[in-house]
Formats: sequence, C-alpha cells, structure tokens
Amino acid sequence: MGEFELIRHFFAAAPCAQGGDGVALGIGDDCALLALPAGQQLAVSTDTLVAGVHFPDPADPLLLGQRALAVAASDLAAMGASPLGFTLALTLPSVAEGWLQPFAEGLNRMARQCGLSLIGGDTTRGPLSLTVTVFGAVPAGQALLRSGAQPGDLLCVGGVLGDAAGALPLVLGQAQAPAAVAGPLLAHYWSPPPQFGLGQALRGRATAAMDISDGLLADCGHIASASRVALALQLEALPLSPALLAFCGHHGAQNAALTGGDDYVLVFSLPRQHLASLQADGWPVHVVGQVAVGQGVSLLDGAGRDITPAVRGYQHFRETP
Amino acid sequence: MGEFELIRHFFAAAPCAQGGDGVALGIGDDCALLALPAGQQLAVSTDTLVAGVHFPDPADPLLLGQRALAVAASDLAAMGASPLGFTLALTLPSVAEGWLQPFAEGLNRMARQCGLSLIGGDTTRGPLSLTVTVFGAVPAGQALLRSGAQPGDLLCVGGVLGDAAGALPLVLGQAQAPAAVAGPLLAHYWSPPPQFGLGQALRGRATAAMDISDGLLADCGHIASASRVALALQLEALPLSPALLAFCGHHGAQNAALTGGDDYVLVFSLPRQHLASLQADGWPVHVVGQVAVGQGVSLLDGAGRDITPAVRGYQHFRETP
Repeated sequence: MGEFELIRHFFAAAPCAQGGDGVALGIGDDCALLALPAGQQLAVSTDTLVAGVHFPDPADPLLLGQRALAVAASDLAAMGASPLGFTLALTLPSVAEGWLQPFAEGLNRMARQCGLSLIGGDTTRGPLSLTVTVFGAVPAGQALLRSGAQPGDLLCVGGVLGDAAGALPLVLGQAQAPAAVAGPLLAHYWSPPPQFGLGQALRGRATAAMDISDGLLADCGHIASASRVALALQLEALPLSPALLAFCGHHGAQNAALTGGDDYVLVFSLPRQHLASLQADGWPVHVVGQVAVGQGVSLLDGAGRDITPAVRGYQHFRETP
Repeated sequence: MGEFELIRHFFAAAPCAQGGDGVALGIGDDCALLALPAGQQLAVSTDTLVAGVHFPDPADPLLLGQRALAVAASDLAAMGASPLGFTLALTLPSVAEGWLQPFAEGLNRMARQCGLSLIGGDTTRGPLSLTVTVFGAVPAGQALLRSGAQPGDLLCVGGVLGDAAGALPLVLGQAQAPAAVAGPLLAHYWSPPPQFGLGQALRGRATAAMDISDGLLADCGHIASASRVALALQLEALPLSPALLAFCGHHGAQNAALTGGDDYVLVFSLPRQHLASLQADGWPVHVVGQVAVGQGVSLLDGAGRDITPAVRGYQHFRETP
C-alpha cells in the first residue's frame, strides 16, 4: 500500500474530509483549499508530539490520536476561533494496521467532537512523531490575543487545573489509583476537551487569553510579558478536582495546578463587568487572581503574602547550569 | 534558552514574520492569523522530512533549511497559488547553535526567494525531523487540480528532469564528479526553485497540474487517475540537462527523469492553443507527451512503440511481496 492509499484508507472516516464547512478541497491534491467567510481571518497553529518526549512509548494509539488533535485544537479555542480543519504529518517506524486503525479512530473521534475536518497531511517513515496543524476562522479583529490584559481585569481559568500533570505517574505506569480517582485524571491527560465554546464566548469580553500547556505560572508569564502587566495569582483560589486532591493531597494538587502543564484549559483576563454574564450563561469561569500595573507573575497565599516559587513550569530545552 | 526564545532568536530574520502581505498576526501567540483578499481561497500543504530518510544525516544545515522549504512550497506553486506564509515544526536531538544558525539562514534565504513569511511553529526534542506547512492564496475556482486533464491536451513539464535523482550519489558521498557536473545537480537537489511564476501563468490555461516529487511516471499516474484519462509519454522528448547526461549517460539520465523523483518541477496538461503564448511569455514549457482517452500511463519510444517499464518511481512504505 502506497502512502496515498495509506492516508486515504485509515483516515477516510474523518468527518467532512471533503466539502465540509469552509473546506473547498480536501485530501488528495497538492494542496487542500479552504474558503473563509467574508470578514473572517484564518487562525493557524502547529504542534508536534514526539514518542518518549510528549507521550509514553508505547502508548495506546486510540488515546494518542485523541490527544494529538485535542492539544493542537486547544490553540484555536484559545484564539476564540471556530474550528475548520487540520492536517496530520505522521512519521511511523513501519506500517502496522493494528496501530493505525485505532489511532485513526481516536483522531476521528476527537475530530468529530471538535468539528474539525482532516484536509491533508503527509506520511513518512521514521521514529514515531506527529505534527498536527489546525485551522480555524475568527472574525477579523476579534481574535483573543495574549497582549491585551489591562490592570484591574480579573484573571480567570476555564476549569480545574493540574489533572493532566497529576495523571502522569499513572500514564507512565509508575503509580496506581482506584478507578474513581484514576479515571478522571487519565481522561484529562488523554482527551482534554478543547474549550471552543468558552473561547468564542470570550470574544469581545476577555482582554487576553491563551491555553495552559506549560503550566499556569509559566503561561501567565507569557500573558504578563505580552500585555506588559503584572499578574497576581491567589493560591487558594485555584480550582482543583476531587480526584486530584485525593491522589496528590492539597499541596501536591496545588503544585500540579501551578507548574504541571498539559491542562489545555483557557486562562484569560476579564474586565469585571463581564464575569456575571459569562457565569450566568453557564460557562466555567474561575477567578484565580487579578491584573495589576507592573510586570511578572506573583503568587499570593490566603493572607496576601507573596510566596512566588522559583519553579516556573516545564520548558523544552531548558538550559542546564 | 526556552523554546520561545529559541524560535524567536534564530528565525527572527525570516521575511515579514509579522505584518507581511496577508499575515495579520505572526509568531508569538497561540495561533497566527492570516487575512485573505476577497475572492481568494487558502491553499495548504504539509511536508515532513526525516533525517536519514529524506536527507542524509548529517546534512549541511544551510542546504537542509533551503530544501525543506522549497520542497513544501513547490506544492503551492503546483496549485497556481501565490505564496503567503509557512509554519515550521522542528524536532531536534539537542539545541546546537552551530546547527540552528545556518539552518535558519538557509530557511530564511528560501523564504525570501519565495516570498513566504514564517508565521509560527513548534520546537521539540527528539530525532531530527522537520514538518513544514505552507500557505498560499489562489482565486476561488482557479486552483490547478490534478483532475482536469482532457483527451487531446498536451502533457508538459516545466524544466529538466532527473537532476536531483542524479545528484543522489553525490549527496550521499558515494560518487564524485567535476564541479561543472556536480554543481548544477547538487543545486537542484538542495535548492529546487518552486515554480510559482509558471504555476500562476498556468491558471486558466492548464487543465491539470502537480509537482513531480515521486518521479514523472508515478506522478503522471496520479494525474491519469484523478482525471480518468490515459497519458502517453515520449521517451525522447524528456528534457535532460547537460550535467545529468554527462554524469549518468543517456540511458541513466532517462531513467532518472522517469523514476528518480525529487524534481519539484511542474507537470501539467495543456490545451494545444495555450502552448505558443506560454512559450512566447518565456515560461519553460517542454511538451513530453499527450493526453488520450483511456487510463494509466504509457511510455513510447521514438518509433511510437510502448516500452512502459514496470518500475513506477519511489513510494514510501512500498509493499514488499
């Protein structure tokens, strides 16, 4: 089976791979063609997952397919974009139907959940890795950037934090937990739902937004830097799941929430007047701090003392002393 | 240096990385934003190059940077698209400034040559590989597809064939040649110029087009299949460079042209009435055969005899018996 047949065969079940909303031409030519509605801009983001670095090797291919697309799609949600499509560049050591079939099923499942169409890609031989590039549409001028946070805004997150980081010992087989604890943590790690609805609801309301991939502290640093403001986080305000608290304890759960990463939950700055209407509409909005004049990110305890830790979350290629 | 600084530092010299034509938001947020002129569609293509599979390992990083972008951009040219931007997903075993600096220089050089802006990407740790996703704009309904070839059309290519395949023993250090021979062959392998001008000139004229990556025979097979026609190639009409003929001899050069791949030259079907005007405008158009009723690709010798070989060019994951 050639590479063309390979792609067609296993990923044919992807939703609207031809002729979906905005997809003028799907898989099978030199390029795919996307049509944007008038007045919309195209949002684009690329994410690579490498075996043994971003996921355990071996990993359950169905879960991996779900996660690869969810992680990439989260960037679209963080811009307030509507989902259009994605390309998949898949590098495999060999063609194993028993792997490709469930991988494609996981990918297709998340594609349907998100409303994303597979529009193209590439299949190559080599060490297992995946690069997913996602496409969305956003009304011109309304994309949620990192750079607009204003002193006085509330700092908010779109859901509980730390579950994926808490799940890591379970993912790696280094720990075990009862199903009631392991289930929700593993679900968040393998299948973090991109917050498209929340992102779109934040258009015209939030002043800055991004999704949390490197950990709350590190990613707040990006907003603080891009917006040239100071962010003060309230440690006791961090939303933590019962499963994470049960598995890690209070201190461990807070640490996972601050620095763990892989949350793919939105963090955003919100003028106070928009909080009530968002919550009334049922969107998950948790106030975790506020925006002030200054620079950098600080962490305050219940008494308002600055307890900013030195650890700032995971970065690839961190310089070693 | 974190991944963010890494990307910014080495690729900051990429042309118009912020605010170029059509680029509303470049590197640094969750997504890049592209604005398309009214009436245009977005053309998208993704290509992965893996060390040791698609290029020798080690390879000169400057040449690799040039080639990675050229190979991907060629797909845009083959659709008749105008260049907009690209993303780079770079997986590296480690951060080596002595490698990144020339790689970025080669990439930026090709980006300037093509008029493509680096709009985003990802940097990860792992075995060396690159995924480039390219974006272009094409007037709605005018993209050059593979599916429109009509019986009676001429079959044409946009330049000499086989040079890159001929260069392979030189690239791999398995052979040597005088500079006058090695120079042009290696140049074509490492820096094949995407035929944007020709592709755009073919809009409204060519009935089908693609770029040759897997070899003329194999890629003609894709046009024949998508267009549901037969293609007859004239062996003696294949344009061959003096360097290739000197290095491989006549038979070896023809074989490289037919099955070698990596040409990144356009192959297209052209109604006869458009040939003269394209050639008068100075576009490189070589008639290599014609389109007929039927299916598949055949190869004819000077006497019109069918000498179609069994070999059909390179495919990844070719099934072994």
